[in-house]
Amino acid sequence: MPDLQLHDDGQLRHLLSLSGLGRDRIGGLLDRAAALRAAARNGELPPLLAGRTVVNLFFEPSTRTRTSFELAARRLGALVVNFDIAHSSTRKGESLDDTLATLEAMQADAFVVRHKENGTPLRLAAHVRHATILNAGDGNRAHPTQGLLDLLTIRDRKGHIDGLKVTICGDIRHSRVARSDLHGLAAFGVRDIRLCGPAHLLPAPDEAPGCTLDENFDAAIEGVDVIIMLRVQKERMEGAPGLDEEAYFAHWGLSAARLARARPDAIVMHPGPMNRGVEIADEVADGPQSAILDQVANGVFVRMAALAELLQR
Amino acid sequence: MPDLQLHDDGQLRHLLSLSGLGRDRIGGLLDRAAALRAAARNGELPPLLAGRTVVNLFFEPSTRTRTSFELAARRLGALVVNFDIAHSSTRKGESLDDTLATLEAMQADAFVVRHKENGTPLRLAAHVRHATILNAGDGNRAHPTQGLLDLLTIRDRKGHIDGLKVTICGDIRHSRVARSDLHGLAAFGVRDIRLCGPAHLLPAPDEAPGCTLDENFDAAIEGVDVIIMLRVQKERMEGAPGLDEEAYFAHWGLSAARLARARPDAIVMHPGPMNRGVEIADEVADGPQSAILDQVANGVFVRMAALAELLQR
Amino acid sequence: MPDLQLHDDGQLRHLLSLSGLGRDRIGGLLDRAAALRAAARNGELPPLLAGRTVVNLFFEPSTRTRTSFELAARRLGALVVNFDIAHSSTRKGESLDDTLATLEAMQADAFVVRHKENGTPLRLAAHVRHATILNAGDGNRAHPTQGLLDLLTIRDRKGHIDGLKVTICGDIRHSRVARSDLHGLAAFGVRDIRLCGPAHLLPAPDEAPGCTLDENFDAAIEGVDVIIMLRVQKERMEGAPGLDEEAYFAHWGLSAARLARARPDAIVMHPGPMNRGVEIADEVADGPQSAILDQVANGVFVRMAALAELLQR
Repeated sequence: MPDLQLHDDGQLRHLLSLSGLGRDRIGGLLDRAAALRAAARNGELPPLLAGRTVVNLFFEPSTRTRTSFELAARRLGALVVNFDIAHSSTRKGESLDDTLATLEAMQADAFVVRHKENGTPLRLAAHVRHATILNAGDGNRAHPTQGLLDLLTIRDRKGHIDGLKVTICGDIRHSRVARSDLHGLAAFGVRDIRLCGPAHLLPAPDEAPGCTLDENFDAAIEGVDVIIMLRVQKERMEGAPGLDEEAYFAHWGLSAARLARARPDAIVMHPGPMNRGVEIADEVADGPQSAILDQVANGVFVRMAALAELLQR
Repeated sequence: MPDLQLHDDGQLRHLLSLSGLGRDRIGGLLDRAAALRAAARNGELPPLLAGRTVVNLFFEPSTRTRTSFELAARRLGALVVNFDIAHSSTRKGESLDDTLATLEAMQADAFVVRHKENGTPLRLAAHVRHATILNAGDGNRAHPTQGLLDLLTIRDRKGHIDGLKVTICGDIRHSRVARSDLHGLAAFGVRDIRLCGPAHLLPAPDEAPGCTLDENFDAAIEGVDVIIMLRVQKERMEGAPGLDEEAYFAHWGLSAARLARARPDAIVMHPGPMNRGVEIADEVADGPQSAILDQVANGVFVRMAALAELLQR
Repeated sequence: MPDLQLHDDGQLRHLLSLSGLGRDRIGGLLDRAAALRAAARNGELPPLLAGRTVVNLFFEPSTRTRTSFELAARRLGALVVNFDIAHSSTRKGESLDDTLATLEAMQADAFVVRHKENGTPLRLAAHVRHATILNAGDGNRAHPTQGLLDLLTIRDRKGHIDGLKVTICGDIRHSRVARSDLHGLAAFGVRDIRLCGPAHLLPAPDEAPGCTLDENFDAAIEGVDVIIMLRVQKERMEGAPGLDEEAYFAHWGLSAARLARARPDAIVMHPGPMNRGVEIADEVADGPQSAILDQVANGVFVRMAALAELLQR
């Protein structure tokens, strides 16, 4: 099977997953994001996407990702259409493929897609004619721009990515963020990755080769450089036992006391939105080691970089 | 009664219906759409609507028409506001006339209106001060830009419109698309028009003067140049017997076998969204005679042409 | 407590209320609005907000205010994001403060906030980092841009504001419009202000110092220059007796006969949306003394002025 993500000449065709992209290509996207950030700070963002049309197709609620993509595209001069699913033809029985074909015929150049089912962006990429697909999160499978913004934030703060010790804590099993982070960290050769959370929210060991699985957060955080806290996703925990928020915090919440077990210069990340007091304490979320708002800021620039890479041919 | 659609000097004031516009004016709009299409392909769309404000007022769900108008207006430089009906003052008891007067006072230049009641755009055109009204579909009465895009697609593919044989099949009775197509085809002197569908979905004979009414699709399609399939509009078929989709397809669906009865170079059109397997087979929708995606592409350009014609005075 | 609205150098930091702004600063905003209006009429609006991002955060339905802010910002070149509350992270349990911090990290420069709870914009202003907050109406507390547009409309029509006699009639108690008008009129030294309405909708006397409270509209309108009618806000009248619309109109509706008791050159204002036949008669709403559509037109320009004042540093 050919790699849907790449053109024959090796250039990026779609952005579906960080898996398989490789360190150089990912590093190139991070460099481009950093360059766009520098340009933005000087008020010199180039209109790289002028004349281009980007369609946001969000089948799940989202604030930050949709807005981040929208701002990224519009600040580079693209015309952005937010496709209102609630009012759309899919309610009239039209297939998603036909909806996409219709929007492509109107000269849409890119689709930013979020869907609760694994693989929807792949399926669309296989059917699309000339447009490019950017996966903004599918099921628990992938969220590649989140992976990119996490990598950029780590690289900014630590100067490098390889050789770091990283803990990811929370609902790993249902997390597309964790999966994309694992893809990205693997590309940079990160070897000490510890996945932590309640047993029923940890992945099967063969799903996360090379990672340490640990229910004990105190042990898993010991001496690490980077801690990525995941949101307790109540809406995705079907079949899980009811959540006792206090007990969850006691075991898997990040307090200042617990954070002290990590390296003194460890950074704390969270993809947001945060459940304060459940997976993270206020003092940590708002403390000096938090890189959470940097992640948000970087999100706009990695999305600019991805859009520019995909649309500037 | 004066013609609301025209200024005293004969120029277009509103676009409410193709009825009464005449061949020259319609032909002029098609020419302008084709010219804008050529400009777009060269990346040279002029900002004809810079400084203008277009308000989308959609009281019925719509994907393609709303997005098509929005892209048309924005690509010509207009500022477009999508008026969110669900959150609007009409919920606070304000009359639609007052809502329009308010938006006009904010210097809205054009209103693109879709409404389930026949005649709403006319009524608004009678009350509006300086703004122009574009009918994006009212009840089962008219959908003039759909008529225009159908005419442009036919002219592109066939080289001319007059003298063609045309079959329209489906729920004619509830279809504003069919009515606007009939107005447009009549303006170009098309004489052989066959309306086909189940008896309870055919119009009364005096509603479609000069047309042939036929329940038998095999007969109605014989030797025609153009076949326009209509969407089975379940939501509009109140009082109709429950739809047996297989039986419908057997009688009034367009299969490849049935299409073979038309001229070999016949084209197939559909306003979308399609119910595949109900009124049209996949092999036809996606086949070489299908002009369905051309219709969508042309839709943006006829809307650009109409907006430019109405707003550039 | 420092004044959240002002920078240390006395310049405007946020626009939360007209209270405390003072005549010069308010007058300066009106002058700027008038200058922008003149520029717009010549097609020469400067792109004062190019490169700036304005986020509309509306937690209550609104047509005119949201659209007015959106048009004001976009016509000056800003990028505007309408934050869709129904689809937002606040539904995932995120705090409003975190939502704002997230949007600020994406380089949002201004937030236009409407909320049903008194003081929400103040609270956000106390937490925000660099962005500016514009209050688009909070509870029954303040709606400062409505106050500004009312003042501009009065000044346009009357040539001055001080020394006028003004009646405000309707549901004063629940009205943020009335409060902002009172703040603005007080800043200009207007001394004869009469508040009229049913007893249970009048404010407590100490809430409106210097104003006359009167249940009798015929008496309250006698000889005044300006009549501001308020909308009967059914959705805000919890605990109030059921509304008899005919009886309300008989006592507190503005008919042409009642208007004749005011000065012959009195002007009639209404913030909209109007309940015609309840608080105002058609003949008055649409008559020569009505300044209602002027208010709407001026609304866009005072919002431009406020945005420019707040964002151009």
